[in-house]
Amino acid sequence: MPAKKKKGIQTVVFENPPVLTSWASIVGPKEGEGPWGGDFDWILEDYMFGEDTWEKAENKMLRETVKLALSKNNLEPDDAEILLAGDLLNQVISSNFAARELGMPFLGLYGACSTVAEALLTGAMLIDGGFCERIVAATCSHHHTAERQFRFPTEQGTQPTPSTQWTVTGAGAIVLEFLGVGPRITSATIGRVIDMKQNDMTDMGSAMAPAAADTIKAHFHDLDIPSDYYDLVVTGDLAKVGMAILERLLVREGLTPKPNYSDCGVLIFDESQGVNSGGSGCGCAACMLCGPLLKKMVKGEINKLLLVATGALMSPTASYQGETIPGIAHAVAIENY
Amino acid sequence: MPAKKKKGIQTVVFENPPVLTSWASIVGPKEGEGPWGGDFDWILEDYMFGEDTWEKAENKMLRETVKLALSKNNLEPDDAEILLAGDLLNQVISSNFAARELGMPFLGLYGACSTVAEALLTGAMLIDGGFCERIVAATCSHHHTAERQFRFPTEQGTQPTPSTQWTVTGAGAIVLEFLGVGPRITSATIGRVIDMKQNDMTDMGSAMAPAAADTIKAHFHDLDIPSDYYDLVVTGDLAKVGMAILERLLVREGLTPKPNYSDCGVLIFDESQGVNSGGSGCGCAACMLCGPLLKKMVKGEINKLLLVATGALMSPTASYQGETIPGIAHAVAIENY
Repeated sequence: MPAKKKKGIQTVVFENPPVLTSWASIVGPKEGEGPWGGDFDWILEDYMFGEDTWEKAENKMLRETVKLALSKNNLEPDDAEILLAGDLLNQVISSNFAARELGMPFLGLYGACSTVAEALLTGAMLIDGGFCERIVAATCSHHHTAERQFRFPTEQGTQPTPSTQWTVTGAGAIVLEFLGVGPRITSATIGRVIDMKQNDMTDMGSAMAPAAADTIKAHFHDLDIPSDYYDLVVTGDLAKVGMAILERLLVREGLTPKPNYSDCGVLIFDESQGVNSGGSGCGCAACMLCGPLLKKMVKGEINKLLLVATGALMSPTASYQGETIPGIAHAVAIENY
Repeated sequence: MPAKKKKGIQTVVFENPPVLTSWASIVGPKEGEGPWGGDFDWILEDYMFGEDTWEKAENKMLRETVKLALSKNNLEPDDAEILLAGDLLNQVISSNFAARELGMPFLGLYGACSTVAEALLTGAMLIDGGFCERIVAATCSHHHTAERQFRFPTEQGTQPTPSTQWTVTGAGAIVLEFLGVGPRITSATIGRVIDMKQNDMTDMGSAMAPAAADTIKAHFHDLDIPSDYYDLVVTGDLAKVGMAILERLLVREGLTPKPNYSDCGVLIFDESQGVNSGGSGCGCAACMLCGPLLKKMVKGEINKLLLVATGALMSPTASYQGETIPGIAHAVAIENY
């Protein structure tokens, strides 16, 4: 049996591309007021979701998104064989507690905001490899839990800099199957950790852009496809500052990102919403994918999508010790055919 | 193509069992003074490993263990296609920074102390699924970084209770390949998150034992093999308190653990070393596997090993909010043949 992925090649191509048979998104009030509000399944009225802490609200959001995605196919959690999930909170508690309630065999991931792609590509390999027929890939983030863990408690009202991003309150879950009808994952590129020595905790876009460039370059190189192959190449959460850097890095590599390139962190909010550089968080790419982007694929407005979810592997402890902020990006190609 | 894993079945069986072709372990001074000191590759002289913080020492330990495991096969990091790693620190920083230095395509995992099994079983599926020929599975923990993150700074000299465990300073890395000579991963069981409402942050063994029982039961049930099939069933880090609970839970399930059952947390230290219930941490199962256990397999003293790495998905934030401590356990069957 020849391996599908050789030394020096970061991209895997699926022989029987796994199918995204259903998906769901739940977002917070601010995301619901944004330009894509009508494309999400459920817009929360507040940040507590009936719980007594923000962390418990985040956990509930993830759990309910998984159940909602399954229910669209008339499935229960028991009907899926593995849950692949991760989130931004220490010890990925939103995912652990969601897995506890759901009772599904669980593989916990940590890829910061790249998690939706890490979960999808790992799940796709498990399905195409013949180990299971149906998995759920899921992730989430919550504005208030992430801000207080990584930066400042939101109640403190710290003035953000123009390069800061607004952590998205949102969750996305995808049911991925061996058989079924829907867009398919045709290939995926596993990212490397790239660190250009950025150390500003208020500028994650600059920390992640070089990793996005590295993964996009590897993807097009490994598959030997033209840079306009996809209808849309969309990064996870570089936001305005990071997106501008990525565009310049891609041009330097001979790839022409425009006009088919955008970023979920730029798309998810309107400039009038006071989010500075744009959106961020595991939920940013996840709910844009599980809301507007897959909706456009079903309508045929997008037929070839490359989702490049980006993660800033930022740690307050490491930053206090003088470390810089490494980035990672994983890419998943989703195609109608 | 029929899936190898069906609804309700948590265990995958490998068609071409991936081979553990080399491995390495690095441990701290205390582990080196324990009963298996002669079986580890490298015993550190102190907890700093030439770095200026414990966290940086932990990151270096993981990185050097990966390089050491590869070097035994005359391989460089570039020769392996994916690094699967995770650790106990927030944002899995030891793994992220090790992946940065190693430059390998990287999938970050979080399974607390179950990580060595999560990495091995995921890597085995990627290899047997035909996606790569060689991966590295690795994890680590450090006594001082874990204690201060999860409980108290060690300088504070807090008096431990008898149920506490001593977080192992150690790292283990395994090179897993499609082809080669060595013990093979024949099957694996993906765990579920189990929570019996234990909430004592000083008693991780009790929190993890029910998850270990659940996974062991699923493993023997799914494969329909007798409970004495393995020469050794070894859990990750239940230590004395958790091991006693697991033995009773297994008997209740009709499985007879003795005389072929032990626990890495019980084995790794001698009672005279003042570790209370025993060892714990991602490094506990990892360096026992990559030290004495695989050495015994090579000598033929063990031919069939079931490693059940156990993780307490404990979060200080969740505990402060009144949450209990969920556990998870993943099992990997390693056999000579």
